[in-house]
Amino acid sequence: MPSKPVCINDFEQHAKDILPKAVYDYYRSGADEQQTLMDNVTAFSRWRLCPRVLRDVSKMDLSTTVLGQRINMPICVSATAMQRMAHPEGEVATVKACRSQGTGMMLSTWATSSIEQVAEAAPNAIRWLQLYIYKDREVTKSLVRRAEAAGYRGIFLTVDTPYLGKRLADVRNKFKLPPHLRMANFETLDLAFSKKDYGDDSGLAVYTADAIDSSIKWDDIDWLRQLTKLPIVLKGILRADDAREAVKHGIVGILVSNHGARQLDCVPATGEEGVCDVLQMLKEEFKLALALAGCRSVKEVDKSLVKRSPWVTPRI
Amino acid sequence: MPSKPVCINDFEQHAKDILPKAVYDYYRSGADEQQTLMDNVTAFSRWRLCPRVLRDVSKMDLSTTVLGQRINMPICVSATAMQRMAHPEGEVATVKACRSQGTGMMLSTWATSSIEQVAEAAPNAIRWLQLYIYKDREVTKSLVRRAEAAGYRGIFLTVDTPYLGKRLADVRNKFKLPPHLRMANFETLDLAFSKKDYGDDSGLAVYTADAIDSSIKWDDIDWLRQLTKLPIVLKGILRADDAREAVKHGIVGILVSNHGARQLDCVPATGEEGVCDVLQMLKEEFKLALALAGCRSVKEVDKSLVKRSPWVTPRI
Amino acid sequence: MPSKPVCINDFEQHAKDILPKAVYDYYRSGADEQQTLMDNVTAFSRWRLCPRVLRDVSKMDLSTTVLGQRINMPICVSATAMQRMAHPEGEVATVKACRSQGTGMMLSTWATSSIEQVAEAAPNAIRWLQLYIYKDREVTKSLVRRAEAAGYRGIFLTVDTPYLGKRLADVRNKFKLPPHLRMANFETLDLAFSKKDYGDDSGLAVYTADAIDSSIKWDDIDWLRQLTKLPIVLKGILRADDAREAVKHGIVGILVSNHGARQLDCVPATGEEGVCDVLQMLKEEFKLALALAGCRSVKEVDKSLVKRSPWVTPRI
Amino acid sequence: MPSKPVCINDFEQHAKDILPKAVYDYYRSGADEQQTLMDNVTAFSRWRLCPRVLRDVSKMDLSTTVLGQRINMPICVSATAMQRMAHPEGEVATVKACRSQGTGMMLSTWATSSIEQVAEAAPNAIRWLQLYIYKDREVTKSLVRRAEAAGYRGIFLTVDTPYLGKRLADVRNKFKLPPHLRMANFETLDLAFSKKDYGDDSGLAVYTADAIDSSIKWDDIDWLRQLTKLPIVLKGILRADDAREAVKHGIVGILVSNHGARQLDCVPATGEEGVCDVLQMLKEEFKLALALAGCRSVKEVDKSLVKRSPWVTPRI
Repeated sequence: MPSKPVCINDFEQHAKDILPKAVYDYYRSGADEQQTLMDNVTAFSRWRLCPRVLRDVSKMDLSTTVLGQRINMPICVSATAMQRMAHPEGEVATVKACRSQGTGMMLSTWATSSIEQVAEAAPNAIRWLQLYIYKDREVTKSLVRRAEAAGYRGIFLTVDTPYLGKRLADVRNKFKLPPHLRMANFETLDLAFSKKDYGDDSGLAVYTADAIDSSIKWDDIDWLRQLTKLPIVLKGILRADDAREAVKHGIVGILVSNHGARQLDCVPATGEEGVCDVLQMLKEEFKLALALAGCRSVKEVDKSLVKRSPWVTPRI
Repeated sequence: MPSKPVCINDFEQHAKDILPKAVYDYYRSGADEQQTLMDNVTAFSRWRLCPRVLRDVSKMDLSTTVLGQRINMPICVSATAMQRMAHPEGEVATVKACRSQGTGMMLSTWATSSIEQVAEAAPNAIRWLQLYIYKDREVTKSLVRRAEAAGYRGIFLTVDTPYLGKRLADVRNKFKLPPHLRMANFETLDLAFSKKDYGDDSGLAVYTADAIDSSIKWDDIDWLRQLTKLPIVLKGILRADDAREAVKHGIVGILVSNHGARQLDCVPATGEEGVCDVLQMLKEEFKLALALAGCRSVKEVDKSLVKRSPWVTPRI
Repeated sequence: MPSKPVCINDFEQHAKDILPKAVYDYYRSGADEQQTLMDNVTAFSRWRLCPRVLRDVSKMDLSTTVLGQRINMPICVSATAMQRMAHPEGEVATVKACRSQGTGMMLSTWATSSIEQVAEAAPNAIRWLQLYIYKDREVTKSLVRRAEAAGYRGIFLTVDTPYLGKRLADVRNKFKLPPHLRMANFETLDLAFSKKDYGDDSGLAVYTADAIDSSIKWDDIDWLRQLTKLPIVLKGILRADDAREAVKHGIVGILVSNHGARQLDCVPATGEEGVCDVLQMLKEEFKLALALAGCRSVKEVDKSLVKRSPWVTPRI
Repeated sequence: MPSKPVCINDFEQHAKDILPKAVYDYYRSGADEQQTLMDNVTAFSRWRLCPRVLRDVSKMDLSTTVLGQRINMPICVSATAMQRMAHPEGEVATVKACRSQGTGMMLSTWATSSIEQVAEAAPNAIRWLQLYIYKDREVTKSLVRRAEAAGYRGIFLTVDTPYLGKRLADVRNKFKLPPHLRMANFETLDLAFSKKDYGDDSGLAVYTADAIDSSIKWDDIDWLRQLTKLPIVLKGILRADDAREAVKHGIVGILVSNHGARQLDCVPATGEEGVCDVLQMLKEEFKLALALAGCRSVKEVDKSLVKRSPWVTPRI
């Protein structure tokens, strides 16, 4: 990196500079015209902070819990697919960085490191498995069993991807994995996203249509719950009625997210050092924001600290 | 086209690249300062989708009905004038594409292919006639009779064009038809928009002022209804009181549209292949959107799926 | 002009091309950072038209009345100072154009043609005098008497200019009249804005501070009413309480305007031909807008035709 | 300066032209992505003035009082740190300009001129001390005692800076004082911000973390009040509940400000002449605005003069 990064944007710019275009596009692009992607960013500027003063913020405690596990800060690493495209150590580096920063990592079903490799790299780290339900239920079952055996602490089931969103850059790039990589959790070329040819479309869109079950419904949630004692979180719920339905089906949490527009939460790493740097920076920035808002711990954050602004301020 | 188009914008860009400026301007321009044209596009970004999850979208049915006719998807081709300016086969290619995609086509009174030519090209296609009421009522009557004879299934009467809107580009270009083309539904040079000279103004504005009846009122709707048994839709209604008045006059539907700002719904074609590609793409995108919103058919679309956003997100 | 103008913006662009910078700046600039000037334009895009259809607009009547006088369209020419800076015939050309289009002209106290010259150029035109109250009340009185004698039909008293707004371009340009021109209604160099030196400031700001009475109050309105039988309109009222006060003081009308941001309502002319062209164009555009909104006359315009939009559409 | 400045922006542009980048960045930058900085500017455009007319504004009185002291206009100079970076005379020039314009100056704890130097330069000027509470309470106490002895009229205690906000430019520039300057109120290199090396971070952020007490709370306000009879104002309050708490603790005023985004209220000066020019210009602009709004004095400003606009007008 030409100079020391001072904010997350610097890492993002660096990723753009060094990654192959198709890889950068894959991580960065949102669906269709990317309105939602843009909105994911501007949404934050619609809120104003209302800081408290004179609250003794000389000592700060950022820790909190997720699914009963204590983590050092309320920032975790969500599932990003195929991280070895960005760096040879990929998910293995990420899990080591998470352990050293004391936070949790969600491993993608579509990782280029296997469930077991990631577990071995950081046995004591807090790890969860992001899961897709495959048309082949034995494949699905096997992923859950391996996560249980390798000490994962929960399942984040993606429920908003019966088909892959239309990401224009991936279609233009006919996106597929570089030949030396594969989805490490699978044996066959088909399931490992390693076929030679996916036609004129985004390879991943074709893979999804072929392998992922687009017929899943609430009954399948019951099936999954009977399969495992691990806590299950539904990833991709956006409506209150769906959230209530989730509770009825014994789901312990939901992850509110719009899959169509993805955040760049994976950046190039040197060993796991880069991931550590990013997590460290996020932690420092979160700590400073908390202190300047007059909060000593996550528990002290309440609704009065934010106010929805009727204005969107243009960016500098 | 340099590379395979992956979204509708690619077709639009291609049209800009290959069409003569005056032709492209004619299709693309809105009236006056084009505020409404801009608004026609941004209006969509004021709505947010609220997708449902876990709804088994493995089987999708996009069909619906228009004026009692079943079509394969809720997307039809509206009237665009003088399509042979964009491609030698013009409206004939369009109707073939509509038939092959199983949807309906509205033929413009101002087409460069005649009512009969279009009918012969696709006898089984669902076709409607867009109608202007001419000062010469015999001309108007004859258009209706020919549509009846050629198996058109309805009349879309344009009611928002007593005069043509002021489209600056057309005025600057002194827009008229290329010499080898004419409005194919008419015999005389005057009515066929084929005079040599229309002065310094937009030729089409002069044509409209000369030929189209700017005095039409609700009584004329009654006259048209007595003339034909075909169902009549009013195109260009924007107010609730006008819609209620239409019902009183036995009108079966209204087409909400602002004529002043026109959508580019006609793009250059190779044979009818290009039109097919566009319709196919729209169908695929609609299907994907429906699936990701958790709907298996058009009937399952309800109001809860959209929410008016208080924000306009800037475009990327 | 390189090509025939097709909209008012074309005239504005032409003015920019041919006028000396200081003159163009004087006509065009708003006060300070010109926020209000910008807002004067964007304000219009906050309203949407709700057109009616099927209303027989083959015959249109645009006429209306101002202060009891009938004019051909609801568009008049407001006071613009020192029009001979833009063209040798200045206000004389403007009044001829107004007469030929059948509308009224408000003559600025600061005109470069005198009250009498303008009256002689178009004795039958509907003319009003825009008036500043000078510190020297005999000067003020004389302006009113001359307007009465020359057949002006009313007085538009400017009430929002106790001092001149800070127009940055005028300060930078040290704006003053070209040496061959003077304010034609006055005899002395001082009052005619013809001194050699106005220091580092906008000359007109210095002139205003020297000559115009910044102490005028409602009592002075009574003084003016006793002075003349001509109807008096207050120009520059923006508050409801001030409007009510105006009624109490026997004022027959108010002209809602923000003086700080000025409209460019004066453009270069050939003889009066250019002004005619502009008025003609405004008339045609107004007529077309009225017709497309389904109105046959100004009387048919009602509140239901406009709707305040919650959105500002970005400009193309 | 190439030409006479006609508005405050001209001074700001001049500062940008002549100051070293790191110095300009220090004065100009807001925290993080500078959203708040942008908002500090655009916030003003959300308000509209509703001017009154006909109010005799020939005589204007701009004076008002702050903490019991009469000042010539309701515009004072707030604390800006280290002004000698911009000009060799720094705070000494500023206080002379304030005295000559008849307004008050708040001296920063972090000034490059000492409490006593500033007092001697303008003994009769209205001066206040901006105060940080240092970890070393004897240092804090001594600053207060020196302000009392040198005739300062009040203490403005900064309460929103337990840590310094993250200003990206300062981090990139590794901002520290030029070697010939020091914070003049302190003896040791450490407290005077004159160490050779502050690592890779913004030097001032490191200084703040080392020296300023991040544990201060409401009890410390009581401690400060018992220490001095000078009136105390809290600088940086943004919430109503904190304002009420301030009243309970005997505070006489609050200064509503968001420290994270700073205004450029310090510009390069020739002797104190430049500061005088700026204050003079602000005074003239304020006077003109007051007059055009129909107010003769600050007392006549009431809520009816402003209206919150539902629109943000884009800038020209």
